[in-house]
Amino acid sequence: MGLTIGVDIGGTKIAAGVVDEEGAILETHTVPTPATPSGIVDAIRAAVAGAGEGHDIEAVGIGAAGYVDDKRATVIFAPNIDWRHEPLKDKVEQRTGLPVVVENDANAAAWGEYRFGAGQGHEDVICITLGTGLGGGIIIGNKLRRGRFGVAAEFGHIRVVPDGLLCGCGSQGCWEQYASGRALVRYARQRAGATPENARILLGLGDGTSDGIEGKHISAAARQGDPVAIDSFRELARWAGAGLADLASLFDPSAFIVGGGVSDEGELVLDPIRKSFRRRLIGSQWRPHAQVLAARLGNRAGMVGAADLARQG
Amino acid sequence: MGLTIGVDIGGTKIAAGVVDEEGAILETHTVPTPATPSGIVDAIRAAVAGAGEGHDIEAVGIGAAGYVDDKRATVIFAPNIDWRHEPLKDKVEQRTGLPVVVENDANAAAWGEYRFGAGQGHEDVICITLGTGLGGGIIIGNKLRRGRFGVAAEFGHIRVVPDGLLCGCGSQGCWEQYASGRALVRYARQRAGATPENARILLGLGDGTSDGIEGKHISAAARQGDPVAIDSFRELARWAGAGLADLASLFDPSAFIVGGGVSDEGELVLDPIRKSFRRRLIGSQWRPHAQVLAARLGNRAGMVGAADLARQG
Amino acid sequence: MGLTIGVDIGGTKIAAGVVDEEGAILETHTVPTPATPSGIVDAIRAAVAGAGEGHDIEAVGIGAAGYVDDKRATVIFAPNIDWRHEPLKDKVEQRTGLPVVVENDANAAAWGEYRFGAGQGHEDVICITLGTGLGGGIIIGNKLRRGRFGVAAEFGHIRVVPDGLLCGCGSQGCWEQYASGRALVRYARQRAGATPENARILLGLGDGTSDGIEGKHISAAARQGDPVAIDSFRELARWAGAGLADLASLFDPSAFIVGGGVSDEGELVLDPIRKSFRRRLIGSQWRPHAQVLAARLGNRAGMVGAADLARQG
Amino acid sequence: MGLTIGVDIGGTKIAAGVVDEEGAILETHTVPTPATPSGIVDAIRAAVAGAGEGHDIEAVGIGAAGYVDDKRATVIFAPNIDWRHEPLKDKVEQRTGLPVVVENDANAAAWGEYRFGAGQGHEDVICITLGTGLGGGIIIGNKLRRGRFGVAAEFGHIRVVPDGLLCGCGSQGCWEQYASGRALVRYARQRAGATPENARILLGLGDGTSDGIEGKHISAAARQGDPVAIDSFRELARWAGAGLADLASLFDPSAFIVGGGVSDEGELVLDPIRKSFRRRLIGSQWRPHAQVLAARLGNRAGMVGAADLARQG
Repeated sequence: MGLTIGVDIGGTKIAAGVVDEEGAILETHTVPTPATPSGIVDAIRAAVAGAGEGHDIEAVGIGAAGYVDDKRATVIFAPNIDWRHEPLKDKVEQRTGLPVVVENDANAAAWGEYRFGAGQGHEDVICITLGTGLGGGIIIGNKLRRGRFGVAAEFGHIRVVPDGLLCGCGSQGCWEQYASGRALVRYARQRAGATPENARILLGLGDGTSDGIEGKHISAAARQGDPVAIDSFRELARWAGAGLADLASLFDPSAFIVGGGVSDEGELVLDPIRKSFRRRLIGSQWRPHAQVLAARLGNRAGMVGAADLARQG
Repeated sequence: MGLTIGVDIGGTKIAAGVVDEEGAILETHTVPTPATPSGIVDAIRAAVAGAGEGHDIEAVGIGAAGYVDDKRATVIFAPNIDWRHEPLKDKVEQRTGLPVVVENDANAAAWGEYRFGAGQGHEDVICITLGTGLGGGIIIGNKLRRGRFGVAAEFGHIRVVPDGLLCGCGSQGCWEQYASGRALVRYARQRAGATPENARILLGLGDGTSDGIEGKHISAAARQGDPVAIDSFRELARWAGAGLADLASLFDPSAFIVGGGVSDEGELVLDPIRKSFRRRLIGSQWRPHAQVLAARLGNRAGMVGAADLARQG
Repeated sequence: MGLTIGVDIGGTKIAAGVVDEEGAILETHTVPTPATPSGIVDAIRAAVAGAGEGHDIEAVGIGAAGYVDDKRATVIFAPNIDWRHEPLKDKVEQRTGLPVVVENDANAAAWGEYRFGAGQGHEDVICITLGTGLGGGIIIGNKLRRGRFGVAAEFGHIRVVPDGLLCGCGSQGCWEQYASGRALVRYARQRAGATPENARILLGLGDGTSDGIEGKHISAAARQGDPVAIDSFRELARWAGAGLADLASLFDPSAFIVGGGVSDEGELVLDPIRKSFRRRLIGSQWRPHAQVLAARLGNRAGMVGAADLARQG
Repeated sequence: MGLTIGVDIGGTKIAAGVVDEEGAILETHTVPTPATPSGIVDAIRAAVAGAGEGHDIEAVGIGAAGYVDDKRATVIFAPNIDWRHEPLKDKVEQRTGLPVVVENDANAAAWGEYRFGAGQGHEDVICITLGTGLGGGIIIGNKLRRGRFGVAAEFGHIRVVPDGLLCGCGSQGCWEQYASGRALVRYARQRAGATPENARILLGLGDGTSDGIEGKHISAAARQGDPVAIDSFRELARWAGAGLADLASLFDPSAFIVGGGVSDEGELVLDPIRKSFRRRLIGSQWRPHAQVLAARLGNRAGMVGAADLARQG
């Protein structure tokens, strides 16, 4: 049986991939992301057509940042694209003639990892995505849990610090202000500015100023033993692990999967996350501990997950 | 079809009730809570026999404070009773000859409210119980969600204040230190001690000292307009509502049900909880809002819920 | 004996006033604030000349936002003007031929209140200025305490929330993010956005949106009983009073003076500040309590204080 | 010229020492601490007589934990001894026939360090004492600053975490709950309980359980490289240094002196305190930095300081 296409809508490009029933990507086609909602529909159509050419495609799954309604049809609100109650499913179905499922991108990635990545064999698994921000997805009883209105698993915006940092969402103290790629950069800049003598490697990789530090510098510097870079990863891990401990109290999954760009650093960030998780886990001597696993599919998780959700209809 | 018995194990008494398929309690029998695990098994047997006499009972459901394993058979750990890996299901089945299901008491109460109380008609509902501590239960897709290892919905111990108050669980900053009956008393005592001129009614209801203030005084004083009592309820509601907003980001239920002794105050506490919930809810202008409902079954919720879980097997 | 001139350097205008030994302002002269350091020196000269004409002036005192060195001669750093190690005393002395003393503006205002305002008769008094930001001054043993390097009393930047709001100074959780005019506006906007039905008066005074709320609207709305406006003042007062309690633990003054634009609201803000102060004050039943007084000189405090500091040399 | 006696009233013993004008201790006499206020007066008399025998003593200075009034005569309140408005100066003067000065013990220790220890040559110096709790003293303009009512420098009870840990003083989030010997033990126990594999050395020094960890074990284990012990010192230092940065914003001293039992560990704790101080210091690139110095007089500081304060009358 058949092939489906997963579409990943990013800030700079839209990627469509033909995915088979085992989660393998057979072919991809990428186009730049237009600025307008109507341009984006055109671009999705083009990407789907480009990737699908010569294949027998049954359905299309689209992963998009934002709130997606409970019918998986309409993007209620998106942070980076001017979508407000955008009927994306209808528009793309009209243009492609294929059945379409729309899903929040972090949910799609979580589903991808659950089906074909680190989450295989687990019935209850929570994924967090440490990218620029912090997202995630919930699988309970082998089903993706989207909530009553479709907007569950907005992990990035649970409050971890009362009266804490202002978040783009308008609230204060949201988790993603403390555990995300953006937070990592903030930690490194603050530390390098205050104690530059401990950040010589890190500062040497950028333009020499603390404001010039970027994420890639922190990873490289940490691997070379730079104290500020290592300490910045630890700070991120402290917040990430403490949050996972809270999620364990709430969901009690058998596994957590940590994905997103930050997780590409592997044990450099996973190991301190596990330590922080265990330090904060309630009743840790009495209960089985969930595993904390690295994601396996990298940035393909969203495409593969969206395609699989489309297959399941 | 048949009757089941729900057993509620409290700190001072054990209550067994015969419950029909509509959630009605036909008869109850109560015995004092013994100090030892073996005494408790005897007492459960006695309560079940006393209540069930003359009825045709199919099964027994037991609600107990503590971690209950994923087989709903063993209490892994209990905070107030000396149970450590206690095989309660086996012991009570041997003594009663009836099939037994053991469930965490807050889960049982949540199920009771979902089936026969404020949660009827909702598929996804989160209950919180504001008693001496803070507990809760999760219903998603019409099923009680217990987690992979049986210990989900430990709401009281998610961290809401980093470096916050020490909790009996050994961690700091747990939600139940800020939103529970115990927290309410602490708020009132602190405020009355610092500004006694604003707590005249409240102090007059006890022994005149701030340390003599108890929960019942705060309720009574608030109804009479005592500023410190009202402010103490507001502080509790501020923390409760903010936590519900986080749970909405995570679970996106269609309704929250607020139960437990504190919720007996009705709108005095529900109204400020709703306000705090809405103030903190992320994306509140874009998404449908979950309802925040008062529990309806009072302290019968646990018994009714346990009995119904036993019926379902 | 003689007259001195106090100069107040604000963001939009520079005001010079002739002040007598009793703290009375005899005459003032105001000029716009230029954009460049050299322009500002010219403007100071012009303001001093304009105000002093026809008077026998002995010295000039200048109050400026920023770090002023221990010789009261050089502005080390200013947040709003491009001064970096600016030798303001030398430059103005050359242009005016008068002895000059430079002082941090909040210190000058504190001195003014101590000498001629609410602080008269107190030997140890702490002033806080709740303006757009939060500043202050310390008088101990009848002397203005500037610290070893001249930069004491930077009250706005003590940390009151670990991992808290980002401050313009680069740190997180600074007091002025929670207790200042800017904080007041943030509180009101957040609350009005979340519960507009409680902010009808407040929203009606601006453009109808929460983002259109300004400080003046909050004051007016609070006086008309708007719940969100009143609650916003209370939140500000909660943080202000808690900080004063900390300052009492550190300095143990006989009085606090609360000045700045926010304090113009009088008891609307002073009363909840006092309550919060007393609630948080340590050992409050054992120790005498410092008074919490409203400033009396309004926005003249800085000019009068600077002039008096110049008189004292 | 003459000798004076310094008396140090501890929880288990009362020590009197004869001190010369250079701060040298010529002789000491120690007696156990009685349980009652009247017993303590007797014991002070005995200790003074024993130490002073054969010396020509001019005055007695007493350092006592608690609030001491502005006349340095009465202990208003003491946490560990049943003193409430105890006229200690009068009582000891009657029994010894010598002029007596009573001072808060942390103030006396601060004065000792300022006069004869690490603070020599500084005009403005802030001392903090990291013992079981956290205390301190303020010297500004070469004078000990006691506040208007005598109770300044209660550093341990400034709030560093809103809604934080409950303190013995009745408030929440006091600095001494995060930076003190007691906090250090809490950090080590929490960490060792959660990750025992990182605390092998530390656990091996006590009874093998995390609850059996004591302060001395943490020091020894840290010197042997135990990760949990080192991390516990770092956590303490993080809070201590951040607090010093706040004190720098307020007082702008030329030096901080860190004393108390925790500081006996020297650079193990001083170095991370300095790093944390610099990381959090506001305007650190623009202003001279206060030095952070280790105390030099150890537990003699209080005795020497009290004696010197008595000499100065």
